Amino acid sequence: MAKDFTTRSEDYSQWYNELVAKADLAEHSAVRGCMVIKPYGYAIWEKMQAQLDKMFKATGHSNAYFPLFIPKSYLSKEADHVEGFAKECAVVTHYRLKNAEDGSGVVVDPDAKLEEELIVRPTSETIIWNTYKGWIQSYRDLPILVNQWANVVRWEMRTRLFLRTAEFLWQEGHTAHATKEEAIKETEQMLDVYAEFAEKFMAMPVLKGVKTPSERFAGALETYCIEALMQDGKALQAGTSHFLGQNFAKAFDVKFATREGKQEYVWATSWGVSTRLMGALIMTHSDDDGLVLPPNLAPHQVVIVPIYKGEEQLSQISEKVGVIKSELEAKGISVKYDNRDTHKPGFKFAEYEFKGVPVRIAIGPRDLENGTVEVARRDTKEKEVLQQSDLANKVEHLLENIQNNLFQKAVDFREEKTHKADTWDEFKDIINNKTGFVSAHWDGSEETEEKIKQETKATIRCIPLNNKKEAGKCVYSGNQSTQRVIFAKAY
Amino acid sequence: MAKDFTTRSEDYSQWYNELVAKADLAEHSAVRGCMVIKPYGYAIWEKMQAQLDKMFKATGHSNAYFPLFIPKSYLSKEADHVEGFAKECAVVTHYRLKNAEDGSGVVVDPDAKLEEELIVRPTSETIIWNTYKGWIQSYRDLPILVNQWANVVRWEMRTRLFLRTAEFLWQEGHTAHATKEEAIKETEQMLDVYAEFAEKFMAMPVLKGVKTPSERFAGALETYCIEALMQDGKALQAGTSHFLGQNFAKAFDVKFATREGKQEYVWATSWGVSTRLMGALIMTHSDDDGLVLPPNLAPHQVVIVPIYKGEEQLSQISEKVGVIKSELEAKGISVKYDNRDTHKPGFKFAEYEFKGVPVRIAIGPRDLENGTVEVARRDTKEKEVLQQSDLANKVEHLLENIQNNLFQKAVDFREEKTHKADTWDEFKDIINNKTGFVSAHWDGSEETEEKIKQETKATIRCIPLNNKKEAGKCVYSGNQSTQRVIFAKAY
Repeated sequence: MAKDFTTRSEDYSQWYNELVAKADLAEHSAVRGCMVIKPYGYAIWEKMQAQLDKMFKATGHSNAYFPLFIPKSYLSKEADHVEGFAKECAVVTHYRLKNAEDGSGVVVDPDAKLEEELIVRPTSETIIWNTYKGWIQSYRDLPILVNQWANVVRWEMRTRLFLRTAEFLWQEGHTAHATKEEAIKETEQMLDVYAEFAEKFMAMPVLKGVKTPSERFAGALETYCIEALMQDGKALQAGTSHFLGQNFAKAFDVKFATREGKQEYVWATSWGVSTRLMGALIMTHSDDDGLVLPPNLAPHQVVIVPIYKGEEQLSQISEKVGVIKSELEAKGISVKYDNRDTHKPGFKFAEYEFKGVPVRIAIGPRDLENGTVEVARRDTKEKEVLQQSDLANKVEHLLENIQNNLFQKAVDFREEKTHKADTWDEFKDIINNKTGFVSAHWDGSEETEEKIKQETKATIRCIPLNNKKEAGKCVYSGNQSTQRVIFAKAY
Repeated sequence: MAKDFTTRSEDYSQWYNELVAKADLAEHSAVRGCMVIKPYGYAIWEKMQAQLDKMFKATGHSNAYFPLFIPKSYLSKEADHVEGFAKECAVVTHYRLKNAEDGSGVVVDPDAKLEEELIVRPTSETIIWNTYKGWIQSYRDLPILVNQWANVVRWEMRTRLFLRTAEFLWQEGHTAHATKEEAIKETEQMLDVYAEFAEKFMAMPVLKGVKTPSERFAGALETYCIEALMQDGKALQAGTSHFLGQNFAKAFDVKFATREGKQEYVWATSWGVSTRLMGALIMTHSDDDGLVLPPNLAPHQVVIVPIYKGEEQLSQISEKVGVIKSELEAKGISVKYDNRDTHKPGFKFAEYEFKGVPVRIAIGPRDLENGTVEVARRDTKEKEVLQQSDLANKVEHLLENIQNNLFQKAVDFREEKTHKADTWDEFKDIINNKTGFVSAHWDGSEETEEKIKQETKATIRCIPLNNKKEAGKCVYSGNQSTQRVIFAKAY
C-alpha cells in the first residue's frame, strides 16, 4: 500500500494529498471546491463530533438549527462582518428551473427570480441574532447557550481537502449574555474546551492565545484561538472563540430588560471548529506509511486479522476471536474483525497500517496452540507476542500508552520547533530554514505586522494567554515592545 | 399555559401551529419557508437521529458526506428525476457580492456568474451516483451501504413547520448492489427499520406498503412506504424506501465487473426519513393540553419539581432529590431537576405538561417527612403518591407503561378509523365525514386513481405489503379488481 506513496521529506503537500486519497478519507467532488467525505473519513469526524458535543452539553449548551440561507441585507447590517464575508459566498437568485424550449435540458426560469437574493450561510451570526431578537426580552431569558452543527459555504478559489474547501462541516456556538464579564468568561471557557479536546482526544498540543486586531473574526472585539504546529513547521489555526461585544445586538436591535428594569444591549459570543480539524489530525501524527490515529478518535481501535489456510482453520480462529473481541468490547474498545476471504493477511496488514488503526492483532494456528496473539502498534511499529490471558487489560493499557506517546511526540516536536528570534536576520532564518513557531518582540502596530507578512509570509498566530510581559525591541521595526508574540507561516 | 390554546376539535390545524410554537419546538424564520428548530424541538430530533443511526449501523451502513450543490446538468441525466425535482429548487448563479456603487449596501457581482448553475440538493441521487462511478469497478467493491445526514431544499410555496418546509433535515441512504434481488432485499430491510423505529420509539403504528406508479419517487421502479394516521383522520407518509433499479447507474454509467468478468450496471436503492417525523410524532399523541411525548424519545423522561418555602426547605428537598435523581439516572432514565427560583411550582407543572414530559415528580416538605413523592404521568394525567423506596424501579416500569399505552391508544384509534368501502357513496361518506383510512377495491388504472383524487382529494396511500388477493369491483369504475388498497386524504 505504501508503495507509490510520496514521503513527507520529498513533498509534504503531495504526501498530504495522497494520504487523504489512499486512506479513503475524502476526495474532490464534481462541484468545484466541494469535497466528498468518504465513510472512513466521516467515521473519524463522527468521533470528533460525539466528543465535542458531549463537552458542549457538559458546559450547559443545547443544539438547535437555523436556516441555510441568509437574506442578503442581513449580511450588511454589521459593517465589519459584511466586509469579511461578502467576497466569497454562494448566491441563490432563483427558485425554479424549467425545460429549455429547444429541448436541450433544463434552464433557470427567469420568472422565478427572488426579490432579495439569499446567501448560503458562510457563518450564522446574522440569521441567529435576528432570531434571538424574538427570544430575548428580559434578563430571565439569558443566557442563551446554543450550538449548531451545520454545513457552511465560503467560496474559496484555491482549495485543499479538509484544510480549505468551499463547503465544510462545522459547529458554531452562539451565546447571548446579560453582562460583558459573563460573555468573556464564556468565550474563554469554550477556548478551554477546544484546547482540552485537541490535547486529550486529538493528541495535538495547542497554544492558547488571542489574535491581533487584523486577524480577528469579522465583527468580533476579541478572537481567541488555539494554534497547532504541523510536521512541516507550519502553523494551523484549529479553533476560534469570539467575544463579539454588543456588535450583533446593536446590528439587530436585541435589548433586554435588566433586573432593575433598564433596557440594555445583549452581549454575544460565537465559537467554532470545523472539518479542518481532520487536516490538523492528519498532519500532526501521520508518517511515511500513512495515517496514524490517536486511539481516542480511531473508528476501530483494534483490528484483528486471522492467519489461516482453509475453512477449518478459519473457523477455529474465528471462534477464539469471538471471545477476544467480546472481552475487548466489554472494556469499551472498538474492534473490527477482518475475516474477508478475498484478501490475503499481508494486504490487510498494509491496509490497516495505512489507515492508521492503532493496534493490530494477528492470530494464526500456532497462536491457537500456544494461547498467544501477535500485537502490533501503529505508532512505533513495535510488535510483540502476548498471552491471550488478560489480553483486554493489556490492550487497554497499550491504547492509553499510544495516546500518550502520540501527544508527547507532538509536544517534543513543537518544543524543538519553537525558537526565539531577537534580530530580523534570526527571524528570517528561522521562518525560511528552521520553520516552526517564532517567539519575537513586536511593536504592536498593524503596519509592522503587515510588512513582516509581506517580506516573509509569516503572520502573528497569536498573543499567548497569560503572556509574560517583557520589555524589548520589535524584531522588525526596533521600536519598543512589551511582549513577545508567536509568528509562523500558516495553513 | 394551556389557556389561549386552541383545542383539536375547534381547529386541528391551528392547534398544531400553536402547539409547535408554545412547546418551543420550532418557528418560522425570516427566510421564507425555512424554519428555526428550537433547542427543545432539536433535542427530540437528536433522540430520533441517535436511534435511527444506531439501527442503520446495526444493519451494516456507514455515514458519509456529499456536496450541498448539484450541477444543473446532473439533474437532467435521469429523465423522471429532473421532472420531479426541477420545479422546486434553489439555484445558485453567482459566487460573490460587492459593495453597491451608490453605497446602499451589497449587490451581486455580475462578474462572478457561474458557468453552470448549481442546485441546492433536493435529494442526492445524482451527485452520489456520479461519485459512486469512481468507487465501483468490480463486484468486490459491492455492496456500498452509505447513509448521509444532511439538509435539503425543495422550494415549497405553502409551508408548515416540520410537515412541509423549504429546507428540512433528513437522512438519505444510498446503496449500490450487484444484483436486483439484493437491492430489493435492502429496500425492504430499510422499510422494516423505519417501521420498527416508528412503532417502538415513536409509538406510532404504521402500515407498510408500496406506492402506486403515479406516487413513486422520481426515478424509482418501486417506492415502499410507511403510512401513519393522524388524529384528524388524515394520513401521513412517514418514510420511504426506493428500489431504483439500474436507472441511476445507467444515467451515470456505473458498471461493475461481475465474478465472471462481465460488465453490468449496478442496482440501487435510496431511503429517507426527515424532520417531518416531528410533525407525525406531535399529531399522533398530543392533546388539548399540549405535547405528549413517548418516553423513548423524550429529551427529559422525568422532571422533578420542588415544592418549598424558603432557602432551607429547598436545600433539604434538593438533598433528597440528588439521591432520587442518581438512582433514576443509574437506570438510564434522563431526569431534569427544575429548582429555578424565578418560577412557581404551578407554572412549572403547566410548562412541563405542555412540553410533554412523560413523568413529573413533585416533592415537598410533607413528602420529606413521609418518605414519599407525588408522581404524575402526562399521558393519562393520573397522579399517585409513592414511597421513595424502590422509586427507580417503579418509574422505570411507569415509563414502559406509558410507552406501551401511547402505542396501544394509537393502534386502537387507527383501528377505529379504518373502514371498508364497497360502494362509491360509502367511499365518499367515509372520506368526507368519518375520515381515516379507507380499504377499497381499485381497478389498477392511473385514470381512476386521478379521478378519485379530483373528486374527493383522497389518494392511494399504499398497496399494503402481503396484501390479501381478493376479487372485487373497483369502488369508482366498477371494473374488475384483484385487491383492496388503502385510500385517505393525506398531509
